[in-house]
Amino acid sequence: MALRGVLRLGEVRIRVLDMEAACRHYGDHMGLLKVMTDADGMTYFKAWDEHDHHCVVLRKADSAGLDYFAFKVYDDKTLTALEGKIKEFGLPVERIAAGVYAKSGRRLQFVLPSGHTMQLYAEKEQIGNTLGTINPGVMPDEGVIRGFRINRIDHLLLGGVNIDENARLFREVFEFDLTERLIDADSKASLALFVSCSTKPHDVAFVLQPNPNKFHHVSFLLESVSDLVHAADMIGKHRIPVEVNTNRHGITRGATIYFFDPSGNRNEVFTGGYVHYPDTPTLTWDTSALGAAAFSQDNTPRESFFTVLT
Amino acid sequence: MALRGVLRLGEVRIRVLDMEAACRHYGDHMGLLKVMTDADGMTYFKAWDEHDHHCVVLRKADSAGLDYFAFKVYDDKTLTALEGKIKEFGLPVERIAAGVYAKSGRRLQFVLPSGHTMQLYAEKEQIGNTLGTINPGVMPDEGVIRGFRINRIDHLLLGGVNIDENARLFREVFEFDLTERLIDADSKASLALFVSCSTKPHDVAFVLQPNPNKFHHVSFLLESVSDLVHAADMIGKHRIPVEVNTNRHGITRGATIYFFDPSGNRNEVFTGGYVHYPDTPTLTWDTSALGAAAFSQDNTPRESFFTVLT
Amino acid sequence: MALRGVLRLGEVRIRVLDMEAACRHYGDHMGLLKVMTDADGMTYFKAWDEHDHHCVVLRKADSAGLDYFAFKVYDDKTLTALEGKIKEFGLPVERIAAGVYAKSGRRLQFVLPSGHTMQLYAEKEQIGNTLGTINPGVMPDEGVIRGFRINRIDHLLLGGVNIDENARLFREVFEFDLTERLIDADSKASLALFVSCSTKPHDVAFVLQPNPNKFHHVSFLLESVSDLVHAADMIGKHRIPVEVNTNRHGITRGATIYFFDPSGNRNEVFTGGYVHYPDTPTLTWDTSALGAAAFSQDNTPRESFFTVLT
Amino acid sequence: MALRGVLRLGEVRIRVLDMEAACRHYGDHMGLLKVMTDADGMTYFKAWDEHDHHCVVLRKADSAGLDYFAFKVYDDKTLTALEGKIKEFGLPVERIAAGVYAKSGRRLQFVLPSGHTMQLYAEKEQIGNTLGTINPGVMPDEGVIRGFRINRIDHLLLGGVNIDENARLFREVFEFDLTERLIDADSKASLALFVSCSTKPHDVAFVLQPNPNKFHHVSFLLESVSDLVHAADMIGKHRIPVEVNTNRHGITRGATIYFFDPSGNRNEVFTGGYVHYPDTPTLTWDTSALGAAAFSQDNTPRESFFTVLT
Repeated sequence: MALRGVLRLGEVRIRVLDMEAACRHYGDHMGLLKVMTDADGMTYFKAWDEHDHHCVVLRKADSAGLDYFAFKVYDDKTLTALEGKIKEFGLPVERIAAGVYAKSGRRLQFVLPSGHTMQLYAEKEQIGNTLGTINPGVMPDEGVIRGFRINRIDHLLLGGVNIDENARLFREVFEFDLTERLIDADSKASLALFVSCSTKPHDVAFVLQPNPNKFHHVSFLLESVSDLVHAADMIGKHRIPVEVNTNRHGITRGATIYFFDPSGNRNEVFTGGYVHYPDTPTLTWDTSALGAAAFSQDNTPRESFFTVLT
Repeated sequence: MALRGVLRLGEVRIRVLDMEAACRHYGDHMGLLKVMTDADGMTYFKAWDEHDHHCVVLRKADSAGLDYFAFKVYDDKTLTALEGKIKEFGLPVERIAAGVYAKSGRRLQFVLPSGHTMQLYAEKEQIGNTLGTINPGVMPDEGVIRGFRINRIDHLLLGGVNIDENARLFREVFEFDLTERLIDADSKASLALFVSCSTKPHDVAFVLQPNPNKFHHVSFLLESVSDLVHAADMIGKHRIPVEVNTNRHGITRGATIYFFDPSGNRNEVFTGGYVHYPDTPTLTWDTSALGAAAFSQDNTPRESFFTVLT
Repeated sequence: MALRGVLRLGEVRIRVLDMEAACRHYGDHMGLLKVMTDADGMTYFKAWDEHDHHCVVLRKADSAGLDYFAFKVYDDKTLTALEGKIKEFGLPVERIAAGVYAKSGRRLQFVLPSGHTMQLYAEKEQIGNTLGTINPGVMPDEGVIRGFRINRIDHLLLGGVNIDENARLFREVFEFDLTERLIDADSKASLALFVSCSTKPHDVAFVLQPNPNKFHHVSFLLESVSDLVHAADMIGKHRIPVEVNTNRHGITRGATIYFFDPSGNRNEVFTGGYVHYPDTPTLTWDTSALGAAAFSQDNTPRESFFTVLT
Repeated sequence: MALRGVLRLGEVRIRVLDMEAACRHYGDHMGLLKVMTDADGMTYFKAWDEHDHHCVVLRKADSAGLDYFAFKVYDDKTLTALEGKIKEFGLPVERIAAGVYAKSGRRLQFVLPSGHTMQLYAEKEQIGNTLGTINPGVMPDEGVIRGFRINRIDHLLLGGVNIDENARLFREVFEFDLTERLIDADSKASLALFVSCSTKPHDVAFVLQPNPNKFHHVSFLLESVSDLVHAADMIGKHRIPVEVNTNRHGITRGATIYFFDPSGNRNEVFTGGYVHYPDTPTLTWDTSALGAAAFSQDNTPRESFFTVLT
């Protein structure tokens, strides 16, 4: 058994207003590796230490936001099994043939209770991390790790309605664990829910918003707080708009920086956080500790953090 | 599905020649938290960020080494299912009632092809990490993180015979992934095999040895290379015998220090390493790159590393 | 010649409104070592890696602020030589006998053009850093490095009038170098001046304020950005009011956190920054780059940073 | 006064057997910036955060070793003053006209009691650190910091005879402080002497050797132990011969790696160490603690470290 079923966030497609500016941001500044531009002008990026072909797809559009996000699952059998369970949960499932999405096997697509489009796939072309698999080294060549020194795509925060239903889907159908939740101190209503399918403190999270299908941020993994400070220096150098400079989340215990791409989509770089296992107790935060839950180094919530989404 | 089945290394029982010296080493110097001494004089320790009652048990004995190691599984149903599969694989399974092992639910015990005694359990008393579960903080009080600043027990390396059979058991019965292997460049025989049930590059590994049931090392997780260097400084301060000071493994990419407890049992502190998923390609090293596989910062194998076990 | 004359910031006396709260802040939370309380109820602290008896003195008073700051000079001859030069510069000098200030040799005292009281001394009792001087180790015992893991007092920022005159005194009389300056983009008037008597990017700095004799902050040295992030975590844990969480100064290139003691005096922890030598070019910033000069990771000046002083 | 007189190690000229291999080592691998090749085929390098034109000169020769090392002094007047004092100490001084050494003002050259050729100069062309001096940033462009991420040349260790006389010259004539010394536990004879003209724990050191004029190593400054571990990874990647992988010196408390250039000259990367001031007590180590003095993380002296020099 071990790690099976739904494995990880594998792909996000982000709408950008200006492709050139976006490529400069995600590629030249953040240091993701541009691997492809397709016939529709969409641009594909990967982080250096991922094996799959890409994790970020940029699409030029009139408004910023997230087209869809996709999780990779263990194998095609898992896909088949999940299709039935998702339908049983009550969501219509669309089958997308292999090849419709670049470098990808067949996909399942469905809309979450929160209004977001989610996909699942079991196959994507692997191009490796440049180190090889026979007597590989541990350090890629100079220039492969660059920009913010991002290792991998990490997780996603989605804003929307019906987040309790989202969490129920992820727990009952996808067998994620509820790692943490933020509730209203009075009403006890869920304000944010964090779920994990791995040992990470979250693989995806949902924050209550008045409108469905809003994109809060996509997060990228760094190796250490030293690299986080380096990323902060690069963010400053490139005059990237910063929402919250280096801080630590109470929720997840991860160290973080929030900043915006040129279209106004929020990005995060993230490092650390505790090791989660299914038997780790769920942590509950309420709004009486909102500051500490959000940013534990200064215990100060940021208004924009709860209101600005794309 | 996600992370289910066999979860993690949860307990090792180590034989020590001098309990007082051992407690000074694991407790005062390494900074593990002593949680209990039982009626038989065995001493129990935990790392600060673990929730379970203990991960290390020390037993006074006439020879150093490992009595057994135990993995925690997802739930009692998993235990039941695994019992059948282990027997099917061909290993006799002993049932141990709840309470026989301190703070623990029932256990299964069996002997690996390599000669090591392994246990599985689904329940152990949880005492938490001092932070609580309602509006918890992120930093424990002064003195909780001390000594080497160890977060968790991490993994185990066992020396023995029939390591291919061990790996087959872990892959077929426990559904671990084979993450890396070291083979003889000429004969292609397996010399060391690394398996994972999580996103870690290994949860346990086996190294070929002429004798069965040998203990190579138990490893503890640190948060960063900064903490690794701090641990190295503490090791030096306490005049702990060092086998390999701070270096990096080619295999796993983890940064490491090897040192010995006062009884001659090898310990490791470990940080970093890549993120493993079931679709990460298995990496193969052969003896033509033995130095780089073992210690990638100086490409130099250490004789003792392959010959000294307890 | 080498490093001679005026050596370093050696002592600050800070006014606090509540001694118990202040001791909790500077001692228990920040981790400075309390070395003495004198007959007047003043409390003395040192940082672990300093050899001198103390660097911070707290005095209970009705208003927060800085009583005086004191630099240590190379020897008594230096003191004698400087007395003449300071008078020549035009400042009256008061001689204070040995023993008037605790553990201290004789002192010179004078008032800077900016209105601040400054002292010089050549002798203070040394109590060492716990490591000894014969076959010393490199790591003090557990608990000596605690709290924010502060190594030393580092520098001071003073707000006042006539800061150009202050800088002239430090350059001409004390032979400090002008390392950086912030000027008004239009008028070219000096807004902040940074001077160094060592290889640090500043040992003291002056910021223009409408009123004389204002205290902006005292800064303490940390070893690394890892320790800076640790300090930020401790600041958050103890709910210490934060003005600017981890960031980097454009000026000095040092990484920083600003926070307040319970009386409202501003403190800083600081790490890094370039290595200054007398032949390093003076760097000039103007108000068109005020954000980058102050906080280079988000290029955002903070209003309070320029207006709140004690 | 402050920092005046002799400022810092500014230049070393190293003999290499194969210029192409040496440039690959110091340039491509270590990441020093190649700034010039002169008419004699000598190659010049600088570290990114130095302002002067170069700090390392490579000369092709039949044997490895050090041609000379040069310290920069505060100004030409200092040079004039030192000439007299050096002669008074008893060493003949050769005057070298401006321009004889590339980009350099006039120099003084003399032979130390230990047999090494030392130079002093007050002027060298400055080309800056790429950041500029008006509203400079804090981060150079991608690719400027590369390889081992070296900030500056740091110090030098010379092996030779009469090291007590060397130390006397540096203390009496150049006004360096004796920061530490290693002595024979029985005879009390000096085995190694460490002197500083700054707040660094040493700017140069001398180790007793049976032959005069031997080169032990030149050391380069890194910003943090994170960068030290990164350098170790790069050293491993490029299969550079390592003498001592990441460790810490008891003497100086600096963290270190020793490795060799392709000609067999020893290099070091170094970070940390305490802050020295003239009133810091001199530390004494004797041979009963030789292991801890040399490498405090494993308390193990290395034979080659005391016997292999070029």
